[in-house]
Amino acid sequence: MSHLPAPLSPAMARTFAPPVMEARRWLQEATLPPGMELINVSQAAPLEPPPEALRRALADAIVNDPEVHFYGPVLGQPELRAALAGQTAAIYGGAVAADQVAITQGCNQAFAAVMATLAGAGDAVILPTPWYFNHKMWLDMAGVTAQPLPTGAGLLPDPDRAAALIGPATRAIVLVTPNNPGGAEYPPELIAAFRDLARARGIALVIDETYRDFHSRPGAPHGLFTDPDWDDSVISLYSFSKAYRLTGHRVGAILASPARLAEVEKFLDTVAICPARPGQHAALWGIEHLGQWLAGERDEILARRAAMEAGFAARPDWRVLGCGAYFAYVEHPFATPSDVLARRWVAEAGVLMLPGTMFMPEGDPAGARALRIAFANLDRPGIAAFFDRLEGVRG
Amino acid sequence: MSHLPAPLSPAMARTFAPPVMEARRWLQEATLPPGMELINVSQAAPLEPPPEALRRALADAIVNDPEVHFYGPVLGQPELRAALAGQTAAIYGGAVAADQVAITQGCNQAFAAVMATLAGAGDAVILPTPWYFNHKMWLDMAGVTAQPLPTGAGLLPDPDRAAALIGPATRAIVLVTPNNPGGAEYPPELIAAFRDLARARGIALVIDETYRDFHSRPGAPHGLFTDPDWDDSVISLYSFSKAYRLTGHRVGAILASPARLAEVEKFLDTVAICPARPGQHAALWGIEHLGQWLAGERDEILARRAAMEAGFAARPDWRVLGCGAYFAYVEHPFATPSDVLARRWVAEAGVLMLPGTMFMPEGDPAGARALRIAFANLDRPGIAAFFDRLEGVRG
Repeated sequence: MSHLPAPLSPAMARTFAPPVMEARRWLQEATLPPGMELINVSQAAPLEPPPEALRRALADAIVNDPEVHFYGPVLGQPELRAALAGQTAAIYGGAVAADQVAITQGCNQAFAAVMATLAGAGDAVILPTPWYFNHKMWLDMAGVTAQPLPTGAGLLPDPDRAAALIGPATRAIVLVTPNNPGGAEYPPELIAAFRDLARARGIALVIDETYRDFHSRPGAPHGLFTDPDWDDSVISLYSFSKAYRLTGHRVGAILASPARLAEVEKFLDTVAICPARPGQHAALWGIEHLGQWLAGERDEILARRAAMEAGFAARPDWRVLGCGAYFAYVEHPFATPSDVLARRWVAEAGVLMLPGTMFMPEGDPAGARALRIAFANLDRPGIAAFFDRLEGVRG
Repeated sequence: MSHLPAPLSPAMARTFAPPVMEARRWLQEATLPPGMELINVSQAAPLEPPPEALRRALADAIVNDPEVHFYGPVLGQPELRAALAGQTAAIYGGAVAADQVAITQGCNQAFAAVMATLAGAGDAVILPTPWYFNHKMWLDMAGVTAQPLPTGAGLLPDPDRAAALIGPATRAIVLVTPNNPGGAEYPPELIAAFRDLARARGIALVIDETYRDFHSRPGAPHGLFTDPDWDDSVISLYSFSKAYRLTGHRVGAILASPARLAEVEKFLDTVAICPARPGQHAALWGIEHLGQWLAGERDEILARRAAMEAGFAARPDWRVLGCGAYFAYVEHPFATPSDVLARRWVAEAGVLMLPGTMFMPEGDPAGARALRIAFANLDRPGIAAFFDRLEGVRG
């Protein structure tokens, strides 16, 4: 009998491998100098568990509340949807209702679900560069063309350049603010200009606000929700992972029109059935009890950001392109491409950063000069140690 | 300013709404007779939480093991992958290695991830009918044509009929055994014949074994894994939801070649990042501690199945098309279509079943005659009450 191997979808074959797993493989292959501990700034991942009070509340539910083990509604628990709606309205002003909120198995899934309702094979979506690689991967898998929108000073995208990119196949513009990988916080006026552009052209503005809780600006990061018709064009994505240290629980959210969420429900029913109930329980407990704790977390991360900026200010051969929330995005001073450096520095310097090549279209020279540093994982002594290690690296 | 609404992908618009959510809406709209409690046999969902020992073990980890709150590898925790590989080899014979196992956020996601590696827009996949509606929904969203394969006596599919359906666009055949919605347990020789067909034609055999733990046959449900080259054509899907009552935790699995799982990893990184860690912890604990308990669960469900068969044997105007694991799939004796009956009987008889129309191609008359009963949710007094209610229904 002939043994033909089972087929592989060409779109999947063309999609690149997960950069975070690639970086994990670098770690496995590297031998660090004896006695040196790795400084891992590759992934935005809290290194401490959620506060003990949350853990105890969740453990109590695991033992005593049968519901937390059962299927729930596809779009999430009504009380969590209502709580996030209320919290969002309180932060941003404006009106957000529970039926404009869906809960997902993390914010990556929120993006995939939304995109599946917007764009299919042959369509196109505008992504500012540097982009978040999982966004690009989803579009590749779905046969959707990513239209790169190069950013300018401060890694900010330009609505006029975006307008020129919109063609008949374009279905959406995606903004990530505070930005991953760039750290940039987009000004409210810039975000409003993108909303106006999307609305005028009948496409969606998808705004990923995973890092909103660590925004440096006091008050609302933007005014989109104060527009009573916001949900005709705006789709906002959120994550509970960073705010309450729930990365391993996979809880994110979509804010959009109820009609859009009825389409999202088809995707989530098929890919998720429902978000994990323990994570939803923890997220709701976080909204209800951890507001003050989260404010302290934000202060700490802003202090770490200041330490990063000061550290690079003392190293003028490095150039900070963006710094905010969890990330610094920097240009290194070497001729060697960033992907070679990032991999080599694991063993040589005990530091793991992700290279800009992972966040840029293939072959774009800007990627070879850049590195992303997920500094929020480091406490201030850790940041000092990080800069000590940078002293020793060679290009 | 003009307000064009944001676009909707045509493939998503064509995809039907989740039947389980549709059934939930029927419930919300219905007023049951006073004092009557609903008998809900619409969804395969255990009504009891997992055993207390599992709940306490998980609660302990939630409080004391920081790891359970952190990101893990995209394809799941190595110890759970190894445990499921070992358990599978023990049940089926043959060789299954940890790197042939991936953990997913539930078995629906396992199907979506596998299909994304096999088939894209313009491709086709063979689904025996009645089919599991979430399989059809995923294919619709992805622009993949579902090729219905009508089943014969005992709801068994015929490999020769399948062979005649395979065309240049066909990428896979999907079998669900024990079957959802039909309850049929496919004989090992039939499964082997489908494997031979898939292999000879260079397509994949995807076999969804969500209900394997409740198979009536002692010993291995099939011999696929005893073939040392099984992973050149076979992809097996599994769920921890029913075995250990973990529906709300969303933990499933894929068994396939490491090369296939490297492609699956791209999808899961983008749609999940990783499966929820608490659910993985619970699933591993289940494999390690609940073997004997699960054997008791299986005995109980087999007894419920016998009660269903006896109940319908006493009602010869109803015809059992299939009965096994969690489901009975039956023909009702009325001229009214099943979707009308199922909806009306919520209020009239306090019973919620899903109509065959949800499991068949649109307009297929067989769907209008059939009902799916997820009887495993009912204890034996519940099954007796169910048949009492059936006495009172009108067509």
